[in-house]
Amino acid sequence: MSAFSPFNPLVCAALTDLYQITTVYAQWKAGKHEQPAVFELFFRKCPFGGEYAVFAGLQEVLGLLSTFHFSAEDIAYLREQIPYAEDAFFDWLSTVNADAVEVYSMREGEIVFPREPLMSVRGPLFLGHLLETPILNLVNFASLVATNAARIRGVVASGTRLIEGGLRRAQGPDGALSASYYAHMGGFDSTSNVLAGRMFRIPVGGTFPHAFVSSFSGLEELSLDGEFSGKKSARDFVDAVLRNRRLWGFEATNSGELAAFIAFAMAHPKRFTALVDTYDTLRSGVPNFLCVAAALWNLGFRSLGIRLDSGDLAYLSKEVRVMFQDKTSEIPHAEYFQIVASNDLNEATLLSLQAQGHAIDSFLVGTNVVTCEGQPAFGGVYKLVEIEGRPVIKLSENLIKTTLPGAKQVYRLSNKEDTPLVDILVPWGDPAPVAGHAFLCRHPFEETRRMQVTPHGVRQLLEKVWDKGTIVEARPFNLADARNFVKFGHTQLREDHRRPLNPTPYKVSVSAPLYDRLHKMWQEAKPIEMIE
Amino acid sequence: MSAFSPFNPLVCAALTDLYQITTVYAQWKAGKHEQPAVFELFFRKCPFGGEYAVFAGLQEVLGLLSTFHFSAEDIAYLREQIPYAEDAFFDWLSTVNADAVEVYSMREGEIVFPREPLMSVRGPLFLGHLLETPILNLVNFASLVATNAARIRGVVASGTRLIEGGLRRAQGPDGALSASYYAHMGGFDSTSNVLAGRMFRIPVGGTFPHAFVSSFSGLEELSLDGEFSGKKSARDFVDAVLRNRRLWGFEATNSGELAAFIAFAMAHPKRFTALVDTYDTLRSGVPNFLCVAAALWNLGFRSLGIRLDSGDLAYLSKEVRVMFQDKTSEIPHAEYFQIVASNDLNEATLLSLQAQGHAIDSFLVGTNVVTCEGQPAFGGVYKLVEIEGRPVIKLSENLIKTTLPGAKQVYRLSNKEDTPLVDILVPWGDPAPVAGHAFLCRHPFEETRRMQVTPHGVRQLLEKVWDKGTIVEARPFNLADARNFVKFGHTQLREDHRRPLNPTPYKVSVSAPLYDRLHKMWQEAKPIEMIE
Repeated sequence: MSAFSPFNPLVCAALTDLYQITTVYAQWKAGKHEQPAVFELFFRKCPFGGEYAVFAGLQEVLGLLSTFHFSAEDIAYLREQIPYAEDAFFDWLSTVNADAVEVYSMREGEIVFPREPLMSVRGPLFLGHLLETPILNLVNFASLVATNAARIRGVVASGTRLIEGGLRRAQGPDGALSASYYAHMGGFDSTSNVLAGRMFRIPVGGTFPHAFVSSFSGLEELSLDGEFSGKKSARDFVDAVLRNRRLWGFEATNSGELAAFIAFAMAHPKRFTALVDTYDTLRSGVPNFLCVAAALWNLGFRSLGIRLDSGDLAYLSKEVRVMFQDKTSEIPHAEYFQIVASNDLNEATLLSLQAQGHAIDSFLVGTNVVTCEGQPAFGGVYKLVEIEGRPVIKLSENLIKTTLPGAKQVYRLSNKEDTPLVDILVPWGDPAPVAGHAFLCRHPFEETRRMQVTPHGVRQLLEKVWDKGTIVEARPFNLADARNFVKFGHTQLREDHRRPLNPTPYKVSVSAPLYDRLHKMWQEAKPIEMIE
Repeated sequence: MSAFSPFNPLVCAALTDLYQITTVYAQWKAGKHEQPAVFELFFRKCPFGGEYAVFAGLQEVLGLLSTFHFSAEDIAYLREQIPYAEDAFFDWLSTVNADAVEVYSMREGEIVFPREPLMSVRGPLFLGHLLETPILNLVNFASLVATNAARIRGVVASGTRLIEGGLRRAQGPDGALSASYYAHMGGFDSTSNVLAGRMFRIPVGGTFPHAFVSSFSGLEELSLDGEFSGKKSARDFVDAVLRNRRLWGFEATNSGELAAFIAFAMAHPKRFTALVDTYDTLRSGVPNFLCVAAALWNLGFRSLGIRLDSGDLAYLSKEVRVMFQDKTSEIPHAEYFQIVASNDLNEATLLSLQAQGHAIDSFLVGTNVVTCEGQPAFGGVYKLVEIEGRPVIKLSENLIKTTLPGAKQVYRLSNKEDTPLVDILVPWGDPAPVAGHAFLCRHPFEETRRMQVTPHGVRQLLEKVWDKGTIVEARPFNLADARNFVKFGHTQLREDHRRPLNPTPYKVSVSAPLYDRLHKMWQEAKPIEMIE
């Protein structure tokens, strides 16, 4: 595949921190910039109190790599910012592209765990630096949203539809667009966002806003002239609705609301759906919906259902379901009416609704899935692990911040049922674990924690995706495939690893040679001195 | 001013919820879409536990209005999504632009409060709907970041510099770009983001990453051939550094780190700055920095300072300051060396640092300012308040969700010192409060809370910014002006309203006629029935 572009036109080489450029200048001056280096992207802790994450953003990273260069405008700007730097540096920088690196990566949508490399960037030192910030930007938010969506997907029943509707509260236009994309990848069924639907072919949907209801003051606003649906006049249709209303004793409902429902039904007879909570859900909204749905049914149209946007969703949905069932003799498909619920839903409220019991078919989740309020940043980091073949370690008093030195490959060992047992990191180039053969898995830091695993299956997780200028086509990308892959991976994971509350940590171990390398470097490092 | 574009190329009419389109179709079918309507944008509660917010996003909204249309691709996509809608509708929709509305708005950077309209969109009903979602998207995130930045600015001492460095953790490329822009507007001095610097002329800055330090294993890596700064050879410079190291008893410092500092200094002698915590801040990083800075000073170069990225920032900064002061006889400008601190800083850690005392000159804030983890969404909403001259109310059992009916203008009443006293909402077209004359300010919901205010100053807050196709040029926009305006507004605000913890609510009152309208409509509304 030749060059392709990232979907976001703002993705470019200049989307970086200035210090990457000043650093590269220092390397270039020192004649060090071409040294072969390996950088790895990983994270230290799963978001949302969980024990897994969903890796995402690869496709945009490939777009970045394919189009990576500094424009003339960038170069002019950088000259201004580093006015003392040599002209030859800028001449060279303006020729830089991403052709000199190889990138290995987890697959888009892979279920991933702390401390394992998700991407490995192999090539000249300076390119590793130049790619750091934009790659982190593209992977961090994508993985955060995909993980959030997968968790929400895991909380609701499997037949329940999830609609993403966070555009108005999202972090800017692209915050919204990325969120729609990665929420779909993580397991949401559709979005309210038209642009996301158009660009990514995600199914779009929605009902109507409260303002549509409150814009009608009464039935006198409806124009009764003209045809409706080629079968009856508009007047006949309104009469039929009002007949149902009288017959069923629903005359106390709000007439402005009823007018709005009639107007919506006349425009969308095949997809009639109503927002029922503007005045009083059970006393006005649902009765008005039923009057209109019955009149539509007499003309042969099946209505879709209603949306609840306030109140006690568990209670209301069950009451509404009973009201629907009471009308199945008049509207045979009433038992199939869908109940969509919204109103600041998040993982915790969804868990609580599942526990209480409800009669909701679809949840519309807005703010929470796009802003990830439970933890609005995915802590992906990108570290130099090897230079000129020399493993690099970053020691820290904080153990979680100590890095595993040297380039590493990751293998996922699984049992007969294809359930992942452990992910194992081995030094790059070391032999892979072999199915049916025992492999010693060590905890990276704790000497006593070791286990022999004889895997039934072994899968290499880092695959080459960018080969010095070319996208490796082994896995042609498709959003639906990535979405299925997330679903599959999520299902494969042992239930106790993926449960929402207090999950069991999944093991990420190191091979014996990696353990030895780490501890040797640790011992060789100068101990931190006690300061009196 | 004629058409201008939003800085984000993704801002367009299709950046909306599908239900806005289906709603407009229903209105169009009902012949209702051209009814004159007023929508207002407001929020219900200040973010971050505060009692004020900073309004932002206007400039992008004007870009949206200037370019508002559905492209041929949008129309084709919408036809697919609503296949039963009439061709005439799509023909009409493809001609729609924003010329039919007037938009009144608060000024970019205005200090604002809950329940007051921040924008008022006046025009045909359908345009109010079509503009809702993109306007909310553009205002919500912008106001959130600007508010967050202003709060952080308010916490640190006035001379302290604030650097935004959240690109790698931001919500996608535009999440980052918008964050850099609005963080600067809210009071940050600079950003690490090159693209934001280039596009918006925000000052950019930074030091260098840990990877630059760990990429050097020792002094032997430095190439000693060639000139340095046209005065001395590179070898002479390194010798001078090593002489200082011996002289000052710093020979136990890490040599790889020292090599990195020397390489950076040789590339950036006029702006030498060092990240000092890779190995041991006080035993290695700062001593190495001093050795290099002294050698640079001998060549006439003043170094800038150091960055701390881990450990106890209060303690370390004070120790580092002492180490700098100890060297003022050798490096006269050492007392001016800057200490930059970073490491997951947020409002709470900054407050704590201020309370403890520290010697830090600049804070680099990343994740927190761009993701606004304290509250990652600004709850701006956009409601229909008037249609065909009829005020619309949205009642709710939840008082905070009840809207104030009818279009409203906002005035800020202030005292002799220009300190804002109260914001007052009056029905659109009603006379403004007059300086020197008593004005009755009522609490919107509580009958007993009334006060007479005789303002010294009266300022109308909603000004026309978009006049049916034209941007009103009364306030030509400039980021620096908006930033100064935030600063000015923040300073004007009474200290107890803006303090970070437990601030006093600022009063937003209604005029007597607005109070009467609200309560009359409340009384006329059907009471909610008790469900047995």
